[in-house]
This record gives sequence, structure tokens and C-alpha cells, in this order.
Amino acid sequence: MAESSPVRFGILGCANIARKVSRAIALAPNATISAVGSRSIEKATAYAKENGYPSTTKIYGSYEAVLDDPEVDAVYVPLPTSLHVKWAVLAAQKKKHVLLEKPVALNVKELDVILEECEYNGVQYMDATMWMHHPRTAKMKEFLSDSHRFGQLKSAHSTFAYLGDTEFLENNIRVKSDLDALGALGDAGWYSIRAILWTSDYELPKTVTALRDPEFNEAGVILSCGASLSWKDGRVATFYCSFLANMAMDIVASGSKGNLRVHDFVIPFQENVAPFYTVEGSWFDELATSIHPSPSEHQVNTDLPQEVLMVKEFSNLVGSIKGKGSKPEKKWPTISRKTQLVVDAVKASIEKGFEPVEVIY
Amino acid sequence: MAESSPVRFGILGCANIARKVSRAIALAPNATISAVGSRSIEKATAYAKENGYPSTTKIYGSYEAVLDDPEVDAVYVPLPTSLHVKWAVLAAQKKKHVLLEKPVALNVKELDVILEECEYNGVQYMDATMWMHHPRTAKMKEFLSDSHRFGQLKSAHSTFAYLGDTEFLENNIRVKSDLDALGALGDAGWYSIRAILWTSDYELPKTVTALRDPEFNEAGVILSCGASLSWKDGRVATFYCSFLANMAMDIVASGSKGNLRVHDFVIPFQENVAPFYTVEGSWFDELATSIHPSPSEHQVNTDLPQEVLMVKEFSNLVGSIKGKGSKPEKKWPTISRKTQLVVDAVKASIEKGFEPVEVIY
Repeated sequence: MAESSPVRFGILGCANIARKVSRAIALAPNATISAVGSRSIEKATAYAKENGYPSTTKIYGSYEAVLDDPEVDAVYVPLPTSLHVKWAVLAAQKKKHVLLEKPVALNVKELDVILEECEYNGVQYMDATMWMHHPRTAKMKEFLSDSHRFGQLKSAHSTFAYLGDTEFLENNIRVKSDLDALGALGDAGWYSIRAILWTSDYELPKTVTALRDPEFNEAGVILSCGASLSWKDGRVATFYCSFLANMAMDIVASGSKGNLRVHDFVIPFQENVAPFYTVEGSWFDELATSIHPSPSEHQVNTDLPQEVLMVKEFSNLVGSIKGKGSKPEKKWPTISRKTQLVVDAVKASIEKGFEPVEVIY
Repeated sequence: MAESSPVRFGILGCANIARKVSRAIALAPNATISAVGSRSIEKATAYAKENGYPSTTKIYGSYEAVLDDPEVDAVYVPLPTSLHVKWAVLAAQKKKHVLLEKPVALNVKELDVILEECEYNGVQYMDATMWMHHPRTAKMKEFLSDSHRFGQLKSAHSTFAYLGDTEFLENNIRVKSDLDALGALGDAGWYSIRAILWTSDYELPKTVTALRDPEFNEAGVILSCGASLSWKDGRVATFYCSFLANMAMDIVASGSKGNLRVHDFVIPFQENVAPFYTVEGSWFDELATSIHPSPSEHQVNTDLPQEVLMVKEFSNLVGSIKGKGSKPEKKWPTISRKTQLVVDAVKASIEKGFEPVEVIY
């Protein structure tokens, strides 16, 4: 990629999360910020300045203008979820590759419209689930895939929670029924669902059953919920997601031979090094007064933060399509769609009074 | 207690777990082994010798003989669960205090017979859930009770699993429908259910819903299962228990302000020191590229292993009843009964096709 020109990003909107991804684009060796658009050109101008955008960045007073710019290869879409289908589809139609913030859509029907448009137009689609790109994730997957060390997956549990303050719970787009109607399920639950699918090699569960008694705000948006997933072969998984609990980002996976634990899977405690814990072949001593071995800590260093690696990977794929005529990588839309299917199933189960919902690809 | 005479224990049967508790009785400053009974006097004799019982220990060829011995104050009952109601009731009738191995009964109806008999006869009842007595447990509870550090409990998850080998899965009493019919639910699930109740200050959930698709052996005994618990105030808990996964003994409790994690709650990795992990007030840095603070490790030392502390606590209570005419401590039968109620609810939910089951004390 060093020889090819960097992928030129347009940013749609001035969301807070876009500040992190803007920095990531600046730090990625194969990407650059080319344009930013907002409904207010003043806002876009101020945002570009505040976030140290290159002086060459084109500032637009609309999202359309970004999509019409021939010097934009790809767009990053951090808009509220309810706007994703409109703008992601339009981006694809304008042959822009799409890096889409999660939750990617309000439901799989909407997502399918986006994915079909991306496929039809030959553009790469990727959801902005950053932890997928941390080298720790690959290291953990090595352990989970090791039949001697981890064995067969038996159960998984994931939590992603953080405590929204009054301002958040009243005004954040994540609790607004017209903007991010999936609430904590779409925002935090997305990660736990992805984590569970990741532990299961993306094999969809047969049924999803929501835990009873989620919490809602007055507009009916989910503030906390959970679900159990079943694969009909004894494998089970559960998750809890919440805007009402102190931050936790856990995956615990139990295999027939070993266990994996991680407590900061979404965003590592530290940017350049991230821990995880494994143990295998655990057993009692003779009188069952102690257990051996204790779990081992593994530290995985990364020169580039996970969001930079995400931009780099996305830009690699875009570069291959642009430079070599490669086809878009199907892994990313496929796992995005599977994640959305489980999100939808949890929502449907809640709406059906916590009945089990079948998941069909 | 140093001044009063030690509590004299009779051991009913020669179960493997009794070896651990026999050592605990020997190590407890206020307890002594007085008698052991087995259906085979040869077996009891060999067992007493192998486990270093005092030379004064009376060896009996029946359980009745232990109960008839006036020099036995209390019995430890490690028999298969299906025999508990008979022998615990008889023990209480003979005015012996009862330290009962878990699972304590096949259902709460049986347990109530035991508890009523203990109450009627003024004897102390305690289930042999050892981790309750580790000083770590009190330290963790301090954290959970701290409204500034932990806040309000929002969710809890517990796993207790270990991998039974072929011998275990074919021959262990824990998988025999006529001996320990509750299988993994009674054996391992007992601990996770107790852990969840412990995080909730023993407030019973309103409903219990089994996770779909437990695993059973050919005799229909549970080898793995799980459930979700709901309190109707947004609090939820889930657990997984199994004889088919590598050993895990986890509690993860999410509060509104902090989190607690422990990975060896049933039996510590080391006998004399046990870790747990807390974190509070976790939040993102400005760009959400890292999380602060990282969890803190706490190490709790114990001079005496947890099972010795259990025997010591039980013997303290027995000593007070014997020496001072105190009433039996009600905490222990109460939490035992609550644990059994949830065990029963999980079983009922499985039998009802994973329907929610109400829990009524």
C-alpha cells in the first residue's frame, strides 16, 4: 500500500465518535481525510479546525456535497442510526466505500438495503466495530481455535455496560426513539452480540430469548437488557448490556478444555497494550482444597490503536478494489448482518414477552 | 470457645468430600472427630486410618450407631442427596446438630422436613457451602454493600463448571438419577445460585427462567444447564453450570458505580490467599481510546482454609447452644432454603419447556 495513494475519506456529520475515527484516519498510513460535511458549514469548519484536519480538507455544508466529491473514495458514516439507510445507500450509489458506525441499522431489512446497494456498486462495506481489529482479538481467537487448549466452546457470557449521566440519559442520541431507537441494545448490546458470535465462529444461534424485564426510558427506548442464545448442541451464551451500570466490557468463554476471560474487550484500559487471561486443564488438588493452574495473563502490544488498524484494514481493502480490481471482502458485511439478526431477535423477543425467537440467516 | 470443650463430630459415610471436611474438623480449634459410621465397618476402619482420625474415634458399622452415640454432638452428612432427608431428620431427632453437604435435598419439600425437624429439636443446621466462610467473601461483600463504591446491583453472572472425565460421567454419584438426581444443577449450580443470591442480599428473584437446551445423560440427569433470574426492578442475573466444561468459578457483579469479579469463588486457586478484583467509576478518556481505571486486585489471606472456618463457625454456634442455651442461628437454614427454592425453580422451568417460574418463599 505504501506505493499506492492513500484512501481519501469523507466524513458525514460532526458526531463525537467521528473525532476518534478522524484521528484514526490521520494516523493510518494508507488513509487521509479529504472532506467533511455537515448540515451547517460553520459547524463543519469549526469541527475540522478543532480536530486538526489537514488544511486541504474540503468543508461542505451538506452530506450530499461530500458524496458528490470525486476526490472522496470512502465515507465514514457516524450519523444517528435512523439516517444510516438513506446516507449509506446514497454513498454506495455514488461509488463511495462505506465505513458505517454501529448500530448499523434499525433492523436487518434496512441493513439489507444498504448491503445490497454496496454489493451492486462494488464498494466495500465495514461496520466500525473497532475491537475486531486489535491484535489482541486475533491472539484470543488463536486460543479459542486451539482444540488442545480451549477445546469445544460450551458457554459464553458478555457484558457491555456504562453509566450514562443525567445529561446522557436525557439528551444523547442513543436514548432517542427517533434517532437510535435500539438504545442500549444497539449501542452496547451490539458489541456483546458480536463478541458471542465471534466466540462461536459466527455460527448463528438457533434461538434467542430476551431476559425478562429490560429497563426502558419514557420514550420506550431500551436502557438495559440481556438475552440468552442457544445453538441446540448444548452451547449457550448470555449477555447483559446497559446504560445504567458501571462500565464493564467482559467476555468469558468456557471451553471443554480451557477458559478465556477479557475485561476490556471493547476499548482496552490502555491504548498500546491490552490484556487477556487464559487457563486450561484446571483441576483440584487431591483434597479439593485448591485449584491448579491459576489463569495466565497475556499482554498484547499494538503500535497502532485498534481504530487505526480498523481504518488501515478498511483502506487496504478499498485500495485493492481501486488499484487491483479486487472484489469487496464479504466477511465484513456477513458478520455485520449476523450481528444485526441477533439484535433484531432480541428486540423481537422483548416485544413478544420474552418468547424464544428463531434466528434464520 | 477455648474454655469449652470441642464439638464432637460424627461422620456419616466415607464419601470423598468427607476427607476434606475431616481434615477441617481436625484443624478447627473447637471441633474434634468423635465417630465415623459406614454400612461396612471394614470400610469405616480403613477410612479412619487413611484420613488420620484420632485413635479415640469410634468406628461404627452403621449410620444409626453414630446417631445413637451420646458422645456425638453434631453430624456431618456427606451422603448422596437422596439419603439426606432420612438421615438428617433422624440426626435432628437424636438431637445432633447437622452440617449437611450440598445439594441439601432433592427439593424444598424434602428440605423443609429437615429444617422443621432441626428447628423442633433445637439443633443447628448449616449447609456445607464452604466459600461462604472464607474471609474473602466478607471482604467482597463489604465492597458490594458500599453504596459509594459499588452502588446498586444491576446484574450478576456466575459460572461454576468442571470437566468430568469418562469415569466421573459414568460412575460418579453426581450423575446418578437415584442418588443425586439434580446432577450439575444441584452440584455446581448450587454454588452459582448461592452466589447470585449473595450478591442480592438473599432477596429472592421474582422469576427464574431456565436457559434452553440443557444437556442430560441417558438417565435424564442434568450435565449442564443455566438460568436467568429477574427481580422486576431491572436487576437480572444469569448462571451456567456444567460437568462438561473446563473448571470455572466466576462471579461478575455489575453495580451502578462499580464492578466485582472473582474467578475462583468456590475453591480458591491457593489455600491461604485468595484474590478478587474491583473497579469503580470507570470512564473513557476524552476520545474514548482508553478506559480508567483498570481493575484493582485484592488479596485476602486466611490462616485457616475456608472449610476449617466453616467447621469453626458451625461449632461456635453449636457451642453456644450447648454451653449458653442459645437458639440456633436462623441465617443458615434461611439461605439454604432460598438456594433450594431457586434450584427447584430452575428444574421446574426446564420441565415446563423453559417457561418462567415464580419463586415464592
